[in-house]
Amino acid sequence: MSLKLTILGCDSAIPTINKHQTAQLLNINERFFLIDCGENTQVQLRKYELSFQRIHHVFISHLHGDHYFGLIGLITSMHLLGRKKELHIYAHSKLKEIINIQLSASNTDLNYPLFFHVLPEDSEVVLYKDDSVEISNILLNHTINCSGFIFKELKYKRKIIKEKIEEFNIPYDKIIDLKNGLDFINENGNIISNDLITSHSSPPKSYAYCSDTSFFSEIISKIRGVDLLYHEATFCHDLKERALETGHSTTKDAATIAKEANVKRLMLGHYSKRYSNLNELLLESRDVFPNTFLSKSGDTIDFNEI
Amino acid sequence: MSLKLTILGCDSAIPTINKHQTAQLLNINERFFLIDCGENTQVQLRKYELSFQRIHHVFISHLHGDHYFGLIGLITSMHLLGRKKELHIYAHSKLKEIINIQLSASNTDLNYPLFFHVLPEDSEVVLYKDDSVEISNILLNHTINCSGFIFKELKYKRKIIKEKIEEFNIPYDKIIDLKNGLDFINENGNIISNDLITSHSSPPKSYAYCSDTSFFSEIISKIRGVDLLYHEATFCHDLKERALETGHSTTKDAATIAKEANVKRLMLGHYSKRYSNLNELLLESRDVFPNTFLSKSGDTIDFNEI
Repeated sequence: MSLKLTILGCDSAIPTINKHQTAQLLNINERFFLIDCGENTQVQLRKYELSFQRIHHVFISHLHGDHYFGLIGLITSMHLLGRKKELHIYAHSKLKEIINIQLSASNTDLNYPLFFHVLPEDSEVVLYKDDSVEISNILLNHTINCSGFIFKELKYKRKIIKEKIEEFNIPYDKIIDLKNGLDFINENGNIISNDLITSHSSPPKSYAYCSDTSFFSEIISKIRGVDLLYHEATFCHDLKERALETGHSTTKDAATIAKEANVKRLMLGHYSKRYSNLNELLLESRDVFPNTFLSKSGDTIDFNEI
Repeated sequence: MSLKLTILGCDSAIPTINKHQTAQLLNINERFFLIDCGENTQVQLRKYELSFQRIHHVFISHLHGDHYFGLIGLITSMHLLGRKKELHIYAHSKLKEIINIQLSASNTDLNYPLFFHVLPEDSEVVLYKDDSVEISNILLNHTINCSGFIFKELKYKRKIIKEKIEEFNIPYDKIIDLKNGLDFINENGNIISNDLITSHSSPPKSYAYCSDTSFFSEIISKIRGVDLLYHEATFCHDLKERALETGHSTTKDAATIAKEANVKRLMLGHYSKRYSNLNELLLESRDVFPNTFLSKSGDTIDFNEI
C-alpha cells in the first residue's frame, strides 16, 4: 500500500508570488484525490509535475474562495485537454450552481462526465469507498458550513511474494483471492497454503484533513489515532480572540486537538499572511504536541515514513 | 498626458508556469483600467508591483474563463485588504450573477461598492468618460458575445508653462481655464494671451483592444488610425480553418485589420500553446504589416514612444 500527500498550497486568504492558497493532492495507490483547490492550483500541479488528468475525485471543504477559486479553471483545462474520464466533486450544494453557471456562460458542454456529490451539512457519512480506501466528512466549526475529511485505508490485504507466482504457476485471476487470504488450489487439486505465497502488508494508514475550523473538541473522537492530522493554525496563540472571531484556530488549538486525539503526527497550515517566519507557529504547537511539522508547498509526505 | 499599458498575461486557454492568461493594465494619467482578468491576475499584478487597489474600472471582453476566472479572486482580495473605494465592472450580463453567487456562497458582504455595467450585445456605446478619456465597446465576432474596447484620450488640453504661473501670479483656480485655451485676466484687468502662458500638449492617444475575434472587417472603420491596436493572433496562417472554427484570428488576419485600419502599431497576443517560438507569428504578421510586435507578460508600452 502506498499513501503520499503533496502540498500544493498552504496559505490562507490572499495569494502572492510565493504564497499559495489551500490545495493538497493525496495519492492512494496511484488513485489521486484533490483536497481543496485555491486559485492557480492547476499551475501548482504542473509545477510539481503532477498530472491533473489522473485526479478523479475532488473534495472541497467549504466555499470560501481560497479553498475553491481554482476549481473552475481546473475543470475547464481538463476539458480543453480532451479529458474523457469522469470527475467527481464533493462539496456543499452551492458549488454545483457556481460551476454550472460558469460553464453555461461560456457555452461549454464538457466532454467528460462531471458528478456532484453534495456534502451533508449536519451529518457525517461515507462519501467514497473502494477496495483500498474509505473517505468520510467531518463536521467542522467555521463561519460557514465547512467539512473536514478523513481518509482511511481499508484493512490491509496480504502481499504476494512475487517469486511464488512462477513457482506455483499461479494464474493472474487468482491474485485477488490470494491477497484476500484464500489458499491456492492448483490444477492438480493440491492446496497451497496462503502463508506460503503471501506475506503481511504494512498496516492501513489514515489521514485527517481539518480546515478551516476554530477549536472544536467534537472532532477528537473522530480522528483518534490517525497517522497524520492536518489542522489549520492560522494564528499564534496570542491572537486567540481573532481566531475565534474569524472561525479559525491557533497553534495551541491545533496541537491540543492532536494531543487529545493521540494522532501520530500533526501538520500545520493555512497560515495568516502576517507571519513571515513560520517557526513561531511551529514552536508554539510543539510546546503542546512535539510531533508537529509545518506544511510547505511542494513537500510530499510519504505515510510509510510517518 | 501619459498613457502606459502593462501586459499581465497574453496566452490563450490553459495557464502554465510561464504562460499567463489574458490581462492588461492601462494607466491613463494615473487612472488604472484593467482589461480582462485571467486566473491568477492578482498575483501577476503583485509580480509587477502594480497596486490593484488603484484599479477602479475593469473591462471584461467575454465570458470564456481565460478572460475572467481571476476576477472573483481579485474582488475578494480587494475586500480582504480593506478596500473602501468603489469598483466598476463592465461585462456581459451573466458575470454579475457569477460574481454575486460566489459572494453569497461565502457570505461576503463587500466593504466597498461594486457596480456592474452591462455590455450591450448588439450596439456600441460610450461606456465611460471623464475629463481625459472616453471608452467604448466594439462588437467582435467570436463564438460567444464578445466586446473589444477602444480607449481614446480626449482632445488634448494646453500645457501650462510652469514659470509663467509665478511670473503672472496666476491663482490655482484659473489653471483649468488656461488648459482649456482661455486667456488670463489679471487683478488689474489686463488680458494675458493664452499663448504666452501655455504650450501645445502632445496629441491625444488611442488604444484598441480586440480579443477574442475571428477576422472581422466591420471593426476597421472603428479603430482607424489608433496609435496601438492589440489584436489577437491565436494561430499562424496555415491554421486559418482552425481559427475560423474556434472564432479566432491568424497572424495575417490581425495584420490585415491593422493595415486596412491604418493603425500606427499592432501588438499580437492570445497565442495558442502550440507555439514555443513566437517569432513565427511575428514574422508572418510583419509580412503584411511591418509595424507589428509581440505582447509579452511584464512589458510596458509607453504611448509617448509609439
